[in-house]
Amino acid sequence: MKKLAIGIDIGGTNTAFGLVDENGDIFAESVISTERYKYFSDYPQYITALCEAMHALCNSVSFEFDLIGIGIGAPNANYHTGEIVTPANLWKFAPDESDPREERRVFHIAEDIAAQFDGVKVAVTNDANAATIGEMVFGSAKGVKDFLMVTLGTGLGSGFVANGEMIYGHDGFAGELGHVIDRRENGRLCGCGRKGCLETYCSATGVTRTAREFLENRTDDSLLRAIPTDQITSKDVYDAAVKGDKLAQDIFDFTGTILGEALADFIAFSSPEAIVLFGGLAKSGDYIFKPIQKAIDDNVLPIYKGKAKLLLSELKDADAAVLGASALGWEAKSRL
Amino acid sequence: MKKLAIGIDIGGTNTAFGLVDENGDIFAESVISTERYKYFSDYPQYITALCEAMHALCNSVSFEFDLIGIGIGAPNANYHTGEIVTPANLWKFAPDESDPREERRVFHIAEDIAAQFDGVKVAVTNDANAATIGEMVFGSAKGVKDFLMVTLGTGLGSGFVANGEMIYGHDGFAGELGHVIDRRENGRLCGCGRKGCLETYCSATGVTRTAREFLENRTDDSLLRAIPTDQITSKDVYDAAVKGDKLAQDIFDFTGTILGEALADFIAFSSPEAIVLFGGLAKSGDYIFKPIQKAIDDNVLPIYKGKAKLLLSELKDADAAVLGASALGWEAKSRL
Repeated sequence: MKKLAIGIDIGGTNTAFGLVDENGDIFAESVISTERYKYFSDYPQYITALCEAMHALCNSVSFEFDLIGIGIGAPNANYHTGEIVTPANLWKFAPDESDPREERRVFHIAEDIAAQFDGVKVAVTNDANAATIGEMVFGSAKGVKDFLMVTLGTGLGSGFVANGEMIYGHDGFAGELGHVIDRRENGRLCGCGRKGCLETYCSATGVTRTAREFLENRTDDSLLRAIPTDQITSKDVYDAAVKGDKLAQDIFDFTGTILGEALADFIAFSSPEAIVLFGGLAKSGDYIFKPIQKAIDDNVLPIYKGKAKLLLSELKDADAAVLGASALGWEAKSRL
Repeated sequence: MKKLAIGIDIGGTNTAFGLVDENGDIFAESVISTERYKYFSDYPQYITALCEAMHALCNSVSFEFDLIGIGIGAPNANYHTGEIVTPANLWKFAPDESDPREERRVFHIAEDIAAQFDGVKVAVTNDANAATIGEMVFGSAKGVKDFLMVTLGTGLGSGFVANGEMIYGHDGFAGELGHVIDRRENGRLCGCGRKGCLETYCSATGVTRTAREFLENRTDDSLLRAIPTDQITSKDVYDAAVKGDKLAQDIFDFTGTILGEALADFIAFSSPEAIVLFGGLAKSGDYIFKPIQKAIDDNVLPIYKGKAKLLLSELKDADAAVLGASALGWEAKSRL
């Protein structure tokens, strides 16, 4: 009988999920609203709605199959405990809910879903780790035993594979390369409350911050000057760079150089075979790849020179999160 | 029958080796000169001398035992290939040897020793990794599945264990935390030819460089002013700190802060359960531990706060290298 896993991607707005086979082919997909269940007390209803929709999806498939695992990618999800812990944008306490636990909200999501899918293993991890597993099982890191995945989206996420295994860390929260600190003076303020975190430079948001700084501090012409500075997106910077705009190209150079320097450090102690870039910013092609590669070459210890390949993710954006999560489902099965 | 492994520590001056049981008890030890065999063409004789001495050591033991593995710790040793590659201070080309291979010298040491110990598995790795395995098998990291070992000697070495396994990296050369770059301005020149490497600050040599800088740039009294600046050792700095010398204590604060900041970055993506410090500088107790711990606490992402324990190695200095290498021998056996 055909074997399928369910991959679930829990985002702040929607929860997408799909039935995926061992080749990464998605047989059926569906989505429910996450933000409809926005408060802490809505969480049980969210689980009920999600499981009903998952059962409906399973019933919609025209052939019989064996459901072998469920994988979930979600913010602040812990692989070791199966929990989502105090996610910034999910199931917050309502203004009128006064709860003594205040700062800590724990959702036993693996257990709660497993309870409604008898005998099926459920595994969770954060979104960047799920994408990493997806890349390892279905993408450009297939067969690669030591690699780093860097997701360049609104923030900078990462997943780290060594000896063919995900490195979750002792507490299940490894992989925060975005919060490695660049200690050159005047580090940018990060959402985490500290200064100089890598993701304040190397992310879509980082690119727009750099654009604003460059436009303010420089006097040369740029296509970007036609856009109000608070509305510039990283896509605008890319479009300008493609048209030969020097300032826009310099923004990518600046961004790629900082990322490449950090990656050179990473190479120094983990010596990966590949570094896979994923996310909108990674698709800026040579504009971002060239300065990253140059900064790696300029900064890496001689013994590592030319060894770590810089690759673009092969996962399709729209499917990557669901695919990645489903790969975790496949992995959950293999651990039985 | 009792099972023993041989651990070999190849240093620039001497090669020490010992017969070790599964508890880390050393039953017999011996040593041969390494520097006597200093040139490239001396290497075969070195192997012969070493193997003869090892056989003699085995024969010196009064009971019968099963030799189950040989582990070697050596500079530039590659676990994956069993080779030592272009070691800085071993088997260089003699002044009169003109060799077209010039820059690259490869010694197939695992193979060469295995050839004289029929059926025994031989594994090699660099000295810092060997110490790390020793710590995992016999020391303070026993049972710890995710940890970082930092060796603070002349330089700064490191070994990284995740999911209970050594991370050798794709090419076998992972673990060069000493060559992660601190990018604050005026980085110190490192032996590797680059600037700002962590080991130019956080090592015995780094401490003496800091001492010279502080004595030059500051005007306050210090016990260290009684010593010619080019003769100050890290031990002198420790002795002065113990006597309440403010400048000496500030040197440790400076050193520990830089190391702690780098470790906070390391925690951000690997989230270890423990960080084990080893080597002379690590024995400076609170003088070095307190600023490291403070810098970690001040710099780590909130979710990791208080999680990674900072530990002192439990391996005795004199035995650590041989013990660590023997642990690799035990591991080589378990991989059969």
